[in-house]
Amino acid sequence: MALVVVGGVAAGMSAAARARRLDPHLPIVVLEKGVSVSYSACGLPYLLEGRVREPEELIVHTPEYFRKERKIEVRTGARVAAIAHPRREVALESGERIKYDRLIIATGARCDTSAIAGSGQPHVFTLHTLDDAARLRAFLREREARRAVVVGAGYIGVEVADALRRNGLRVTVLERGADALLRDDAAFTAAVRRVLEAHRVELRCGVKVDAIDADRVADVPCDLVVIAAGFKPNAELAAEAGVAIGRTGAIAADDHMETNLRGVFAAGDCAETTHLVTGRPTWIPLGTTANKTGRVAGANAVGGRERFPGVVGTCIVGIFGTAFAATGLSVAQARAEGLSPVSARIEAFSRPRYYGGAATTVELVADRTTGRLIGGTVIGEQGAAGRIDVIAAALHKRMTVDEFEQLDLAYSPPFTPVWDPLLIAAQQLSKQL
Amino acid sequence: MALVVVGGVAAGMSAAARARRLDPHLPIVVLEKGVSVSYSACGLPYLLEGRVREPEELIVHTPEYFRKERKIEVRTGARVAAIAHPRREVALESGERIKYDRLIIATGARCDTSAIAGSGQPHVFTLHTLDDAARLRAFLREREARRAVVVGAGYIGVEVADALRRNGLRVTVLERGADALLRDDAAFTAAVRRVLEAHRVELRCGVKVDAIDADRVADVPCDLVVIAAGFKPNAELAAEAGVAIGRTGAIAADDHMETNLRGVFAAGDCAETTHLVTGRPTWIPLGTTANKTGRVAGANAVGGRERFPGVVGTCIVGIFGTAFAATGLSVAQARAEGLSPVSARIEAFSRPRYYGGAATTVELVADRTTGRLIGGTVIGEQGAAGRIDVIAAALHKRMTVDEFEQLDLAYSPPFTPVWDPLLIAAQQLSKQL
Repeated sequence: MALVVVGGVAAGMSAAARARRLDPHLPIVVLEKGVSVSYSACGLPYLLEGRVREPEELIVHTPEYFRKERKIEVRTGARVAAIAHPRREVALESGERIKYDRLIIATGARCDTSAIAGSGQPHVFTLHTLDDAARLRAFLREREARRAVVVGAGYIGVEVADALRRNGLRVTVLERGADALLRDDAAFTAAVRRVLEAHRVELRCGVKVDAIDADRVADVPCDLVVIAAGFKPNAELAAEAGVAIGRTGAIAADDHMETNLRGVFAAGDCAETTHLVTGRPTWIPLGTTANKTGRVAGANAVGGRERFPGVVGTCIVGIFGTAFAATGLSVAQARAEGLSPVSARIEAFSRPRYYGGAATTVELVADRTTGRLIGGTVIGEQGAAGRIDVIAAALHKRMTVDEFEQLDLAYSPPFTPVWDPLLIAAQQLSKQL
Repeated sequence: MALVVVGGVAAGMSAAARARRLDPHLPIVVLEKGVSVSYSACGLPYLLEGRVREPEELIVHTPEYFRKERKIEVRTGARVAAIAHPRREVALESGERIKYDRLIIATGARCDTSAIAGSGQPHVFTLHTLDDAARLRAFLREREARRAVVVGAGYIGVEVADALRRNGLRVTVLERGADALLRDDAAFTAAVRRVLEAHRVELRCGVKVDAIDADRVADVPCDLVVIAAGFKPNAELAAEAGVAIGRTGAIAADDHMETNLRGVFAAGDCAETTHLVTGRPTWIPLGTTANKTGRVAGANAVGGRERFPGVVGTCIVGIFGTAFAATGLSVAQARAEGLSPVSARIEAFSRPRYYGGAATTVELVADRTTGRLIGGTVIGEQGAAGRIDVIAAALHKRMTVDEFEQLDLAYSPPFTPVWDPLLIAAQQLSKQL
């Protein structure tokens, strides 16, 4: 028995480490095209910002650690050219062939800039690897860039905008769609816009970027461009090997993270999962899901029968100190799924006023037919992560608004108000059901 | 139709306000023995500490507000001597009688000091009302007290100890039982002790206080004593009227908050509720539950059929900046309930180290027979409230450890780590199931 993992970082290394823990003697090879196999990709914006001073701070484990401490053969700079499943063989670009009994595909996702003319210019960057961050930092220092355009108002886009603004640049974010943060939610986008504008970052939605000029993008003058759009799963290698691709464009896997090819698993940003609110396949590439699906794929590749049930789409991002968190479906997304959404949006204090509470906005979305909670957002400076996680837990268990309204949540003035904003929102929502 | 509410503050005023909202014309009378009907009792320790400067900051609404804005007849200083249910009549100590059709008993709880000799001395206090806090503050200012004893290491006891220490006093907390914070949990108590001792507050458990001398309590010299023990539901008035009392000593009510007497409801600290983990009646007097049961009693008193399903026992307290939060059952409590508890306690970072994460301790308790999560604690400086609330939501929906382990929780470096401490604890616990 031998296990080969294609792709390191979150999913691949979680899978390899889990397999090793469950099987101390199995030969495990990880093939990583880059130079690092275990770093916090989500920390890159803070490296750009300067809060994280050195790239090394973001490295969780070195390849040497995995080799020596975990007995995992980690090969960096190893680019896989093809998977020949009938022969249970992986071919590297170097021509080398490696045999496997079980295969885990953890090839991740990429920022596809091919549709944008001029994206190869030296002042145009993406922010996906430690190397990207290092190059961008060097550019900032050496070229004294003053005006930046960020393409894409997803999570990374707004984090990059925040980081560049804190470095003193004038920043414009151009978003192709109508909304920020990948959520079809005009009020959420309006709140993002307010915080960005309060820090003099401009957000323009409905602007499709096809080309980048030397000194401007879509009429916005700039001397630096960061592309944070066009994310795609790296599913081509798998597809060519006969692995089924789902409607989302990512690799289809069952709830054991196994693909249509027996013994071939997929995990992380290259794979679909199930959206637990809609019951349908979804592609929401996030580090948390990559780690979880990696663990499950790793366990099952060595004979386990673990399940990854799916996700509810929980996200959070900090923009100039305000958290924007979302989970489940927005009203518009719920309508598009054929549900009958009702929602309530309230503003309340995150803790008692006399204890320095700050304003928090909570929106809850329910399905009128079933009375079930199906989504929510939390915006605020205090406690947003915990509150969105409570909604997420409720979505996992298909909680109704009536049940949610009676949750026994913690109360003490230094932390929370006696009526938590979540419960106030639930009370408002319950009036509409 | 007329509604009489015995007792203002959290439960009583929530009930009266809810009844008014649902029935704009019903005569509603609230009989409150004190002078205030709507204030944050949980804010009293912060008034003592000095963070809250004036008692007025803790007042949510004045009696005048309820009279004028809500058309609720609020009578302060109105002591109820007896309830004559066959005549649907309440008798005041003044001799006056008031007729009702529906009655809500919201008489709260008290700190019963009658078993402690010497509790009437001028240097001995409780902290239950705004007036208590004002008297204690005046004493601190005028007498220049230097050494305090706090009797009871429950939530209020440790909050008072914290507040007095911040006022420069030397403080000893004496607890009759083996554990602090009302939780049968040695590790939780040890953590409380560590934080108290780091701030030079002494905690002595297993010390029963029968008497208070002029200059000492149980060999501890002191010139100020605060009693935060001996809490009892104010159920005598109800019992004398024929209202059934539960085994906890509080008023028994069904999940509509109705007592055995038709048309007589109970809410707040005087009433039992159902513990949703054990399915048994419980008495956990807290402001959150008082508000919720008050709302339900108020709605049902005017013809509604709302349900209050019960509580899971969620609590949080801040001690010198560290949150101690608990919900559900401890291992010892679970054993006492006849369950087969297994638990895992982990220490992890509340957010990534490179983003200034602080240590957080999470313990999760599960029932081996069913695999269900049945309790947990969270200790830490960041994010404890949100994390305990996620556990609480899981308890409400009888989530298994396997399900909990796969929760789609929010991740972004300014707020949380990629593996939330909750999930790390669940992984550890799952190995034992």
